[in-house]
Amino acid sequence: MSSASVTTITQITVEDIRFPTSKELHGSDAMSPNPDFSSAYVILHTDNPLLEGHGHSFTLGRGTEIICTAIKAHAYLLIGHTLEEFISNPGAFWRHLTSDSQLRWIGPEKGAIHLALAAIVNALWDLYAKREGKPLWRLISDFTPEQFLKCIDFRYISDVIKPDEALNMLKELESTKSKRIRQLEEQGYPAYIMSAGWLGYSDEKVRLGRDLQDDIRRLKIVREEIGYDRRLMIDANQVWDVDQAIQWVKQLAEFRPYWIEEPTSPDDILGHARISQALRPYNIGVATGEHGMNRILFKQMLQTNALQFCQIDACRLGGVNEILAVLLLAAKFHVPICPHGGGAGLSELVQHLSMIDFIVVSGTWENGITEYSDHLHEHFEDPCIIKNGRYVAPNKPGYSTQIKENSRQQYSFPNGPMWKIHS
Amino acid sequence: MSSASVTTITQITVEDIRFPTSKELHGSDAMSPNPDFSSAYVILHTDNPLLEGHGHSFTLGRGTEIICTAIKAHAYLLIGHTLEEFISNPGAFWRHLTSDSQLRWIGPEKGAIHLALAAIVNALWDLYAKREGKPLWRLISDFTPEQFLKCIDFRYISDVIKPDEALNMLKELESTKSKRIRQLEEQGYPAYIMSAGWLGYSDEKVRLGRDLQDDIRRLKIVREEIGYDRRLMIDANQVWDVDQAIQWVKQLAEFRPYWIEEPTSPDDILGHARISQALRPYNIGVATGEHGMNRILFKQMLQTNALQFCQIDACRLGGVNEILAVLLLAAKFHVPICPHGGGAGLSELVQHLSMIDFIVVSGTWENGITEYSDHLHEHFEDPCIIKNGRYVAPNKPGYSTQIKENSRQQYSFPNGPMWKIHS
Repeated sequence: MSSASVTTITQITVEDIRFPTSKELHGSDAMSPNPDFSSAYVILHTDNPLLEGHGHSFTLGRGTEIICTAIKAHAYLLIGHTLEEFISNPGAFWRHLTSDSQLRWIGPEKGAIHLALAAIVNALWDLYAKREGKPLWRLISDFTPEQFLKCIDFRYISDVIKPDEALNMLKELESTKSKRIRQLEEQGYPAYIMSAGWLGYSDEKVRLGRDLQDDIRRLKIVREEIGYDRRLMIDANQVWDVDQAIQWVKQLAEFRPYWIEEPTSPDDILGHARISQALRPYNIGVATGEHGMNRILFKQMLQTNALQFCQIDACRLGGVNEILAVLLLAAKFHVPICPHGGGAGLSELVQHLSMIDFIVVSGTWENGITEYSDHLHEHFEDPCIIKNGRYVAPNKPGYSTQIKENSRQQYSFPNGPMWKIHS
Repeated sequence: MSSASVTTITQITVEDIRFPTSKELHGSDAMSPNPDFSSAYVILHTDNPLLEGHGHSFTLGRGTEIICTAIKAHAYLLIGHTLEEFISNPGAFWRHLTSDSQLRWIGPEKGAIHLALAAIVNALWDLYAKREGKPLWRLISDFTPEQFLKCIDFRYISDVIKPDEALNMLKELESTKSKRIRQLEEQGYPAYIMSAGWLGYSDEKVRLGRDLQDDIRRLKIVREEIGYDRRLMIDANQVWDVDQAIQWVKQLAEFRPYWIEEPTSPDDILGHARISQALRPYNIGVATGEHGMNRILFKQMLQTNALQFCQIDACRLGGVNEILAVLLLAAKFHVPICPHGGGAGLSELVQHLSMIDFIVVSGTWENGITEYSDHLHEHFEDPCIIKNGRYVAPNKPGYSTQIKENSRQQYSFPNGPMWKIHS
């Protein structure tokens, strides 16, 4: 980066893009029988016409306009600010974006306003990585430990992880970093294809939480199909209360599920802790986090041993900065990162995050499972590539966030041509 | 209620109403130095031109448009439905409103979408109470325990309170209910005026969390002024991390604060539990909840003894139904309800809630402190009335939610005449 050049954010555009996936039952589950995978999409324009940052927040269709409105509400915190301001202290800029005294009331740091923040912060990192000519995973892998820490707002997590401790963790892995970068570039990062577990495809796929006898019948079929050597995950999509979750899953223990995902409300830290404890004798872990609202929730989930698999969502946590905070917290508690990858454009993002975790933060991919969903990649400028069940390390500059202009026009809601056809 | 009549919701209108209070420093605090007290306002129109339900969600200004967008997103869950549907099973209708499979993603049950829900649910209860010709507190006080329970969605709280247990709690207080109604009507409900503690008024008022030496100086002045017989509350508005909160408040212990309010992130259950435990030897309680996002958070706060004063917010929890759930949880743990009353129209709402708690749920007002803020009441059709430091029980039908039409027009944002003057 040349110190002479300054890039100023001059304008933002916000788009509501929806793919009518409900027609095809992609991604349906007990709580979301008919999602339309969608993006609240933002472009940060700069005074350099060749340099734009693109970011999106994933949604299920209705309500995308709420996130779009929330993104626009942040415009005045962005326009006129420079990329160099962000680069010089990404954590401070992140705090600037989360600290508007009036907007804060309608969070703080959760729900629509935080999903909007994610889109914006993703776009800032896309801009930064493009400017540096690096894919995001590599940009951050090349940071010094000190630079990495500057990305993080330690507010509200310093009781569990302090900057000093984090610095030591990062420094310990620094000398072996280049070895892992090579390893990643040669082998790719292990991916897990989630679609098989989703409801609605056909009778032999796993579904959970509606009817116990039916769940038993289905898991039996799946185990007969895949045997007991392969891992089988089960997902309840929050349908149970705490006691019910424990009773239900115990009755599925004979099928040796590797984890139970989202057994109850994503906000219930103590509930997840109780479920984890009850299922430990059965060797069934608890996975949660795709609805995990912020670092403060993850901090407590980890403090109480409430989750054994940490399912960060790239667009629900407040963008890359907050993700890095959660990676550090999870590494401290030796809990593997298993990002949520279902949905439009999430696989593109989470590959970068898992790679950063492997190279810089946890130093391992041993138990990390990074979800991959095989939908809608054709709409992305830099789609993720899977080879032999592994994510190939991206090499184009940016955060793989950019949706093709033609797709954005076609699927623009409610007036794009694809919605005229479907309506 | 006559069984012959059916009232159908035909239309909703949504308004963005903002009072330019930042010009006068009403309600400023460490996190919100310059709020414009505002309302995301909804009117439920029915096929009976004489019957409308009004509801609002309180905000601090910027971002009100996000809540308005979120309210509109719920329109299709309301229009064509009948008031009788709501009345016959308010808890089921509440779940209907919170369970849209696509909207749920951008919560669930938190942030902008939940603030929008509050406005809608408040309007439904206003409609119901008007139809019955009763003020809300009286409508609900007249419910049988069974009717009361039907208002509550026990999802995600049944591990801590089950309907049976709640029923017993309510039944125990039933025989003495009429005595408390009389007592309330004669004496009113004790109010606490918060304005004195807010920042920005003048030098002698309490402010906290910015500079320790300054806090000590100020508390000294206040104690010299009011003596040690009166209660003094201190409020940090979330500025501290957990360790810092403990250290800071210990150094203020000599001034015998009754409670420390919002010492850290409102999402940090375990953090509040640690702070509570550390301050117990000093006889300083922890108060929190005005940013408490839903019943699942309050459940855990109560489970861990993280708060000693439960500060529910009438427009942040998902309206009356979820408030009733939290009242039950608090009563179970013998924690007093101290609702958040600062802001436009909140005092009008919380008086009803405190009265319901007193008459039906906890049966006591012993340690309950209901905040009263003396601003903006002139804009309300049925403003709350304080006599001798106590809320007079409202007697007009409804939930005291309705803002005068003239005020709504004057303060409509951004095009109302008052905003033309201020801009």
